Amino acid sequence: MSAISFKIEGRLKNSLGRAGIITTPHGVIHTPGFSVVGTQATVKSVTPAQLKELGVEVVLANTYHLYLNPGPDLVAQSGGLGKFMNWDGPTITDSGGFQAFSLGAAFGLKLSKIGKFDRSVSFETDLGKGDSLATITNDGVKFRSHLDGSEPFFTPEKSIEIQPQLGADIIFAFDECTSPLASYEYQQQALGRTHAWAERCLEAHKKLPSASPQALFGIVQGGRSQDLREESARVISKLNFEGFGIGGSFNKDDIQTAVGWATKILPEEKPRHLLGIGEPEDIFKAVAVGIDTFDCVIPTRLARHGTVFTKQGKIAITNSQFRTDLTPLEPSCSCYTCTNFTRAYIAHLFRTKEILAITLASIHNLYFILNLMRRIRESILGDYFEKFRDEFLANYTT
Amino acid sequence: MSAISFKIEGRLKNSLGRAGIITTPHGVIHTPGFSVVGTQATVKSVTPAQLKELGVEVVLANTYHLYLNPGPDLVAQSGGLGKFMNWDGPTITDSGGFQAFSLGAAFGLKLSKIGKFDRSVSFETDLGKGDSLATITNDGVKFRSHLDGSEPFFTPEKSIEIQPQLGADIIFAFDECTSPLASYEYQQQALGRTHAWAERCLEAHKKLPSASPQALFGIVQGGRSQDLREESARVISKLNFEGFGIGGSFNKDDIQTAVGWATKILPEEKPRHLLGIGEPEDIFKAVAVGIDTFDCVIPTRLARHGTVFTKQGKIAITNSQFRTDLTPLEPSCSCYTCTNFTRAYIAHLFRTKEILAITLASIHNLYFILNLMRRIRESILGDYFEKFRDEFLANYTT
Repeated sequence: MSAISFKIEGRLKNSLGRAGIITTPHGVIHTPGFSVVGTQATVKSVTPAQLKELGVEVVLANTYHLYLNPGPDLVAQSGGLGKFMNWDGPTITDSGGFQAFSLGAAFGLKLSKIGKFDRSVSFETDLGKGDSLATITNDGVKFRSHLDGSEPFFTPEKSIEIQPQLGADIIFAFDECTSPLASYEYQQQALGRTHAWAERCLEAHKKLPSASPQALFGIVQGGRSQDLREESARVISKLNFEGFGIGGSFNKDDIQTAVGWATKILPEEKPRHLLGIGEPEDIFKAVAVGIDTFDCVIPTRLARHGTVFTKQGKIAITNSQFRTDLTPLEPSCSCYTCTNFTRAYIAHLFRTKEILAITLASIHNLYFILNLMRRIRESILGDYFEKFRDEFLANYTT
Repeated sequence: MSAISFKIEGRLKNSLGRAGIITTPHGVIHTPGFSVVGTQATVKSVTPAQLKELGVEVVLANTYHLYLNPGPDLVAQSGGLGKFMNWDGPTITDSGGFQAFSLGAAFGLKLSKIGKFDRSVSFETDLGKGDSLATITNDGVKFRSHLDGSEPFFTPEKSIEIQPQLGADIIFAFDECTSPLASYEYQQQALGRTHAWAERCLEAHKKLPSASPQALFGIVQGGRSQDLREESARVISKLNFEGFGIGGSFNKDDIQTAVGWATKILPEEKPRHLLGIGEPEDIFKAVAVGIDTFDCVIPTRLARHGTVFTKQGKIAITNSQFRTDLTPLEPSCSCYTCTNFTRAYIAHLFRTKEILAITLASIHNLYFILNLMRRIRESILGDYFEKFRDEFLANYTT
């Protein structure tokens, strides 16, 4: 029994890019689409009513965080993630596998999922420098909670026990998200674990009661090696998942090529989600090779630091030049923030450390990305994607 | 030329209490009414759209804070306080006189405007202990900015220069708000200054261009001494103000009596505002002796600390008993927070330090007080004020 359905509505002529619609038990997601991130069952500083007004269609929360606080029992008693946070649309949970990276190899180091990584830095030698909160074995990942020092042990079976309690429409298989600095040999070993865990997740998922079905997505890993990415796509695509996530880290320069290694192999009829990527330039590249959905903390995280999207690129609103600027953050933008407030006002709020600064900047940044996704979708359906992309990026300084 | 008008619509039979309507250039204020506080041109953590939804009618901002940041020139260039913060309803600014207290005698000490003050503590000896940021002379108040160490000098004329730049509908005369611990002799001297400054404010106000008229309110001071309060009410009521504020500190036990000393003398036909008071029990007492409007930071300040109003009194939502409580903050409440979220969810947000916690708690606390004001007003118009008050307070633990 399928929990979701996916219909392709339009395709790019010379690439894998497409537009479509995912139907979930809680509503539809138009693709290419962007899932806002609500790590702890809240999109930081924004109410669900404001999310609706923004045109948000889907919210992704983090299983690991909700496991620690408030715990899956309370979320289940509340009627699941959506009811708990008062979001009646589609929801997604990740599996906790990303925290094997963020609390493991990346912890205490300045590593992100996308960048220009310094190959001269060795993963193996640097691993010990960050005081890692995750220990990985073939059976699963032992975390050390940053909250209370407890040591939750996540396995594929545990993830597929917790995620049904959280009750999202789309859930993910437990994987190992590796560091961009890891050696080829390490990536190989990790990939073996991710593939074995994918099968264990499917087994665990099959044993669940059929009520409230959730769509289980498998995750393709393989770091930035073509052969590992292709191997992973082959292995994962043969398993009975309802859709796919592509995880791990990418290089800014070759993300289109690297995501394409996987999407060329993944079955066309199932949706593909690119985990944790959300800058405009990366979205264009991934859409061009057939990514359907994205999630990323970037819009809200940047907003909290006073950085906002404009058509010319990102600006730091606290720069002195904006102190007396009576224009909107982005003059062409139709969001609540841009239609009602000036740069000078928002700069004042940031300068005086007012919470509303973060809310207004978050609303704008989310709208900017959501609106970009809607225009990308229209451009695919209207067969002018390349033109739209080239014009957008010609103005946009990354 | 009057900037505002005030119409009394109903009166209590055995007291000075009344219900009415203040009409300003930006809309009406139903009285008894509550002005939310937007110190820095923002009601902390709440958008103007949410204020509208809450039924807020009027916002009060602080002249001293806006003078420092972003400065009155920018507010004026933005079209005034209302346009700057995107609030199209009535606005009020205070005069900066309150900061003579909050940054002067009260600075570094734990002094509030209302409480049970320890008479054994001497104002004169304790004054030096708090590192005061305000020095008071007969000409005005010299502040030391907590932001940049600059030393703005506020005089009556300066206040009546800045407030027109901010452009609120109702503005206040510059006064000296004294400490509850000040001696009788000090209160006398301060009162002399406040009265002299009131006349200087009126003089300065008369010289302003008649465009965009603002209603200037005088302030009655006099601490907690009956003769000083009565003297102040007599002096101030004879001056040509469009309304009156009652400032200074009060004792929880005798606030009704003390406010009544002033309201008995103030002319009936002009509106009376009680500055900085806003707990439910104090609102009832002040309404009974003829206060028309209130302003107070209490609803939003408490919210930021996780304390919320219920019909039974205030509760700290982070108490462990609410961790799994799936009921609303106040089951009978119709606000956005209570109709959509549980205590358990809001407790989770506070525990995980999510900004949305503050927004949701602020929305509820503001609604609670605004709704209380609406019900008080109805009870006056329907002639059941005492019954409503007694029933409310019988359940409400202060």
